[in-house]
Amino acid sequence: MIIEAPDERARTEGRARQARLTKPTTALGRLEELSAWACAVQRRCPPGSFGSPALAVFAGDHGIARTVGTSAYPPEVTAQMVVNLLRGGAAANVLARQVGARVRVVDVSVDADPSYLDAVDPKVASRRVRRSSGSIDREDALSARECREALSLGRTVADELIDAGADLLLPGDMGIGNTTPAAALIAVVAGADAEAVTGRGSGIDDATRARKLAAIRAAIARAARHDVPEVLLARIGGADLAAMTGYLLQSAARGVPVVLDGIVSLAAALMARSIDPAVAAWWVAGHRSTEPAATLALDDLRLDPLLDLDLRLGEGTGALLALPVLEAAIRTLAQMATFGEAGVTDRAPGA
Amino acid sequence: MIIEAPDERARTEGRARQARLTKPTTALGRLEELSAWACAVQRRCPPGSFGSPALAVFAGDHGIARTVGTSAYPPEVTAQMVVNLLRGGAAANVLARQVGARVRVVDVSVDADPSYLDAVDPKVASRRVRRSSGSIDREDALSARECREALSLGRTVADELIDAGADLLLPGDMGIGNTTPAAALIAVVAGADAEAVTGRGSGIDDATRARKLAAIRAAIARAARHDVPEVLLARIGGADLAAMTGYLLQSAARGVPVVLDGIVSLAAALMARSIDPAVAAWWVAGHRSTEPAATLALDDLRLDPLLDLDLRLGEGTGALLALPVLEAAIRTLAQMATFGEAGVTDRAPGA
Repeated sequence: MIIEAPDERARTEGRARQARLTKPTTALGRLEELSAWACAVQRRCPPGSFGSPALAVFAGDHGIARTVGTSAYPPEVTAQMVVNLLRGGAAANVLARQVGARVRVVDVSVDADPSYLDAVDPKVASRRVRRSSGSIDREDALSARECREALSLGRTVADELIDAGADLLLPGDMGIGNTTPAAALIAVVAGADAEAVTGRGSGIDDATRARKLAAIRAAIARAARHDVPEVLLARIGGADLAAMTGYLLQSAARGVPVVLDGIVSLAAALMARSIDPAVAAWWVAGHRSTEPAATLALDDLRLDPLLDLDLRLGEGTGALLALPVLEAAIRTLAQMATFGEAGVTDRAPGA
Repeated sequence: MIIEAPDERARTEGRARQARLTKPTTALGRLEELSAWACAVQRRCPPGSFGSPALAVFAGDHGIARTVGTSAYPPEVTAQMVVNLLRGGAAANVLARQVGARVRVVDVSVDADPSYLDAVDPKVASRRVRRSSGSIDREDALSARECREALSLGRTVADELIDAGADLLLPGDMGIGNTTPAAALIAVVAGADAEAVTGRGSGIDDATRARKLAAIRAAIARAARHDVPEVLLARIGGADLAAMTGYLLQSAARGVPVVLDGIVSLAAALMARSIDPAVAAWWVAGHRSTEPAATLALDDLRLDPLLDLDLRLGEGTGALLALPVLEAAIRTLAQMATFGEAGVTDRAPGA
């Protein structure tokens, strides 16, 4: 499906309107260009509030967490946290309630018998691609067919949310060990070595970090920079990452903008951009995670995140926290008085 | 009036509760310590949402804007913007509506006949201290009596807002030329030279900045680091800055916390801390303004701001933008499930 460009005429109108508002020129800083982006993706100036944001949390396990042990938490926590997300007790649920965002949880590749969802919502695993992705230091994460299936599942999730009225999509992740494939993918795309992308993830100690570093190094060696994204996702990614990639592509194809989150969403963003470079114009970066690979990915994507609050939680939390900033950008552009309306003296032209 | 310390027992309880929530330890980054601060100032854990934030905008003119010309805008814009604020068209109004904050505008020292308020709200100037503060490069901003009057006016404003139910106060400023006295005050307290504190304010060109630099240098020479804050405010501050200082002191004395804004509020914060060091425990810094003196003041106050969005607008806008982050910190601490409640496996102790 073709991804169209946002409306540059509306973006220019947004910038021009900013210059007429009752404040010193550019005094609203980052909010000004953000408001112009909102004009471009909504194809109108002034833009309206995003009334129906939706977060999709793509949950999956990773063989590496079991074979190598790259996390501070045991793999069974993924399924437990999926249940927590469905019951509304996770950080993403709390922040989504604050900003009025819908939360959709998708079990893409959790390593648990689907009966773990019986007490909450069995449908969440109804389109699961596989039980856990492979251990990427030694085997492929997915087959080519599974990768296509996961990409397609992510596209379907975007379609369903948009068909139900969502006008802004957020990507969220849940999966013990998922920063390992995310870091490996970012390293390959950014041409960085394992040391540069290996962070503390869930808060690992030095011994665990050494294991994670070796695993990422082995994973990087199993891929090549010229591999197409579908091959990278199958070799050293995971079903959850592939699903998120499809979600990002379909959102842009439907003309719905996205606020990106931390390292997992940024790895998926790099894959989506490789598949179609036009997708990136539909994105804003919500925050800068403390994971070193997040900053590498942001630089590669040329995105300057709105928040820098030392978060490293995932689930979409950093994207959710950025929504009030986006709303503030939209409201100031739409609601502030202009110099003319307010009878306020503007600076002399060129002064 | 004595300023009591926030409740350290509640702060400790907040940190302990954070450690039990279903997320990796410290994964919520800055939100965690912020939520503990909310416990401390509310003297309870978990804390509740701040339901009635209020912003007081202290408006005043500065002789320096007329004698030297340190702004990109003419002095009459102060009065015009006061009217704009009263009509709801300024950036602060828009952002206050977004977060449900009340806006109170106080004409402390605007250089206009009070009749300029006839069509909106004449009461706004009913306790005006003087018409414009003096030109601080050559004369005192205020007499000692006027300084006391302004401090007292700020205390009264805090009392009135708190008596009307406000549970969180924000300081806002409006005044052409007001970054000049603010920068001079910060330079004296931080022991910095004029070059280090002179920013572009409203967006001035090189020639205007050279005039502003000379004016700040002359002002600094008219004061000494050992001067008591009341003397500094009278010599090189202004009535609006003195009023804001009183407002910050009284808010803490009443046990009501404050979210600070940009350079003007930080200059007032330094004055308030000199008068009573206990006041600072009641503060959070909302944002880092692009004004160089703001960063000097934040360092001196040992405050790490929540946002860094290249704002340089004042009015309280940076403080208002930070409120959703504070709310997110409170809600995550209060509403997230604990490991025990959710049946999620915590990491092994010490792992």
